[in-house]
Amino acid sequence: MTAGADPSPYAERLDRAARVAGEAGLSALLATPGPDLMYLTGHAPPPLERLTLLMVAPDRHPVMLVPLLERPAALASPAADLMEVVGWADGEDPYAAAAGFLPPGRLAVTDQTWASHVLGLQEAAKGRTTFVAAGPAMPPLRAVKDEEELAALAKAASAADAAFADILGVVFAGRREADVAADLADALRRHGHRTADFTIVGSGSNGASPHHEAGERVIAEGDAVVLDFGGHLDGYCSDITRSVFVREPPEEFERVHDVVRRAQQAAFEAVRPGVPAEDVDRAARDMIGDAGYGESFIHRTGHGIGLEAHEPPYIVAGNTTQLEAGMTFSIEPGIYLPGRFGVRIEDIAAVTEDGATRLNEAPRDPQAVR
Amino acid sequence: MTAGADPSPYAERLDRAARVAGEAGLSALLATPGPDLMYLTGHAPPPLERLTLLMVAPDRHPVMLVPLLERPAALASPAADLMEVVGWADGEDPYAAAAGFLPPGRLAVTDQTWASHVLGLQEAAKGRTTFVAAGPAMPPLRAVKDEEELAALAKAASAADAAFADILGVVFAGRREADVAADLADALRRHGHRTADFTIVGSGSNGASPHHEAGERVIAEGDAVVLDFGGHLDGYCSDITRSVFVREPPEEFERVHDVVRRAQQAAFEAVRPGVPAEDVDRAARDMIGDAGYGESFIHRTGHGIGLEAHEPPYIVAGNTTQLEAGMTFSIEPGIYLPGRFGVRIEDIAAVTEDGATRLNEAPRDPQAVR
Repeated sequence: MTAGADPSPYAERLDRAARVAGEAGLSALLATPGPDLMYLTGHAPPPLERLTLLMVAPDRHPVMLVPLLERPAALASPAADLMEVVGWADGEDPYAAAAGFLPPGRLAVTDQTWASHVLGLQEAAKGRTTFVAAGPAMPPLRAVKDEEELAALAKAASAADAAFADILGVVFAGRREADVAADLADALRRHGHRTADFTIVGSGSNGASPHHEAGERVIAEGDAVVLDFGGHLDGYCSDITRSVFVREPPEEFERVHDVVRRAQQAAFEAVRPGVPAEDVDRAARDMIGDAGYGESFIHRTGHGIGLEAHEPPYIVAGNTTQLEAGMTFSIEPGIYLPGRFGVRIEDIAAVTEDGATRLNEAPRDPQAVR
Repeated sequence: MTAGADPSPYAERLDRAARVAGEAGLSALLATPGPDLMYLTGHAPPPLERLTLLMVAPDRHPVMLVPLLERPAALASPAADLMEVVGWADGEDPYAAAAGFLPPGRLAVTDQTWASHVLGLQEAAKGRTTFVAAGPAMPPLRAVKDEEELAALAKAASAADAAFADILGVVFAGRREADVAADLADALRRHGHRTADFTIVGSGSNGASPHHEAGERVIAEGDAVVLDFGGHLDGYCSDITRSVFVREPPEEFERVHDVVRRAQQAAFEAVRPGVPAEDVDRAARDMIGDAGYGESFIHRTGHGIGLEAHEPPYIVAGNTTQLEAGMTFSIEPGIYLPGRFGVRIEDIAAVTEDGATRLNEAPRDPQAVR
C-alpha cells in the first residue's frame, strides 16, 4: 500500500460509530445485516434467521459474530482485519454466544434488526442490559455523505432521469399499470441499476393512493398517472416521481400540478445548512395549504436517501434536526384527490455549503404521454 | 359471488392464527410487513420505518394500523373486510396508537419485525405486556402448505430447473463468477421468476465458502463450481444447488460429489410424516461422516421454504418438530474443502402422506460445463 494512501473508509467509520455511541451514553452499537453493517464493514450478507452481529463499543476492539458457514465470506470482507470475527455453528445458541461479549448497560441495535434477534439478545443478557433502537437513541451515522457517496447518488439519480426519459416514449393508453411498471423496471436496469426496487404506476383514481402498487387497471386516454420509481445502482439508491397525463391535460390537472411544482420548489429553496428539517416540510405544506389543498397533502415532504431508500433525515413536522452540507433527501410533496387523481413531484436534493442542489434533472413541467 | 364459493383463504388463516396464538398462551399475534402479513391478509407493502401492524387476538376482531398514506392500498387489499383498518398520520406516534388497542399479556411479534418497531411497542405498552418472537413462541402458521401453495412451489422449482438446464450451455472458463451469476439471474427471470434473489457462483476455492458471493474471480478449466440460486415466482420461492465441473472432472471431485449425492438421497429417504426434522439432518450427516468428511459438512441439512426462502421447519440437529404432509423444505448437504473446492446438492422436498416427493428434477449426477 502506498504510504499515506488508505482508500478504505471503514476504520474511520468504525471509530466514529464507537465515539458517537459513547457520546450518546451507549455501551455499544450492535449492527445486524443491512445498511449499517454494510456502511461500517463492507460486509453485506442478506438478513437471515441466523444471527450475524457486529458490536462496536468505545475503548473496545470490534467483534463480529457470524454463522460458521459465513465465516469465510466475513473474513474476506474489506474490514475483517479491523475486528475479531467469531463463528457460531448451526445447533449452537448464538444469543448466548453474543451475551458472552456484550458489555453491560444501554445497547443500541440497528433499527432493522429482526425482532427474533433483539428479543433473543434481550433474554440472553437480561438483568444487566437495556436495548434501544439506534435510530432514536443516537445521531445518524450515515446522514452526511462523503464525496464518493454523493457521486454514487448523483449517478443513480441520473440513471433514474434517463429511465423517465425513456418511459415518456412508451404507449400508456390501453395498457395495464403493471405493463408500464415492467417497462420502468427494464429502463432502470438498462440504465445501470442493479435492482428496480419499486415502480409505482398510479393511474386515474389509483394516483390518489400515494403508495399504490401497479396493478391490472388499464390506463385510458384522459388519465393522470403518478410514476414513482427507483432502485439500487452501485449500492446507492435512486427515487424519483413525476406525474404525467395521457394526451391533453385538462385545466384542473395543470392547476394542481402547478401547485405541487411550486411547493416542491419552495421546499427546495428552504434548504441550507442550519435549517431544521421540519422547516423544509413547512415550506411545501404552506404553499399547498395557501392554494386550498392542505387536506390533500397527506404525507411528509421527504426522507433521507443513501444506502437505503428511506433513512434520516426525515423531512417532517417535529423533526428539528439541523441540516448539514452533504445530507441528501427527497423533496416530494403531493396532492391526492380521492376517486379522481393524484399529483406528486419528487427529486433528490443534496445540501451544499450555502443551499442545495438537485441530483435529478428530469423535466418538472407537465408531460403528456400517449 | 357464487353462493358457497369463497376462494379467499384469509378468513381461515386469520381464525387459525388467533386460535393457535391463544393455545400458545399468547394474548395476540402482531404482524408487520413481510411474509406473515402477506399470508394472513394478502397485504404486501414493503417493510419501512413507518409502522404497519396487524393485531390478531383470540375473541377479538383483527385490527390493522397503517400509515395514512397507505390506508387506500390497505383498504383495497383482499382481507380488508375482515378487519378494522386504522390510519396514523406522519408526525403522530404510531406506537402510542398501537398501545391503545393492544391487549395486556404476552404478545408475539413476527420474527422479522424491525427492532425500531418492537422496541417502540415495548416502551409504549410497558408494565402490562411482554413481547416474544412468534417463531419460538408459537407453532409455525405457514409450514404446512395447501394445494395452491404446493403448486406454486412446484412451478417455481421447475423454473429453477429450467434455468439450470440453460446455464449448462453457457461458457464458464475465462469468465468472471459475476458474469455467470448474471446469466443465472437472466435465466430465472426468463423462466418466469419475478425476482432473482440470490445467485451464488463459488468457483474453485471460493466453493468452499458456502455463502460465497459471486465476484471478480475468473473461472478456469479444472474448477469445480457451486451454483446455488433462486428467487420469487408468483409470490413463492425457488432454491436449488448443483455443483458442476469445468471440462473433465478429476477422480476426487467425482468421489466427493458421490458422497454428497448419496447423503442427499439418504436424507430424502428419511422423510415421512411423524419423523422429527433432526432425523433428516442426521441421515445426511451420518452418510458424510461415514465417508470421512464429517468435519467438512459445516451447516444444517436444510430449511423450510414457501413465501420465504428460509422458514420453518429447519432441518437441523435439535429440532424435534415432527414432519407433516404438506411441509416443504430444502435438502442440501455439502462438503467444503478450504483452499480447494466445495460440493453441495440441493432440492426442495415436499412431505407426502407416506414419504416425500422432490419438486426439483434437474440432474443430480456430475455435469461438465465448458
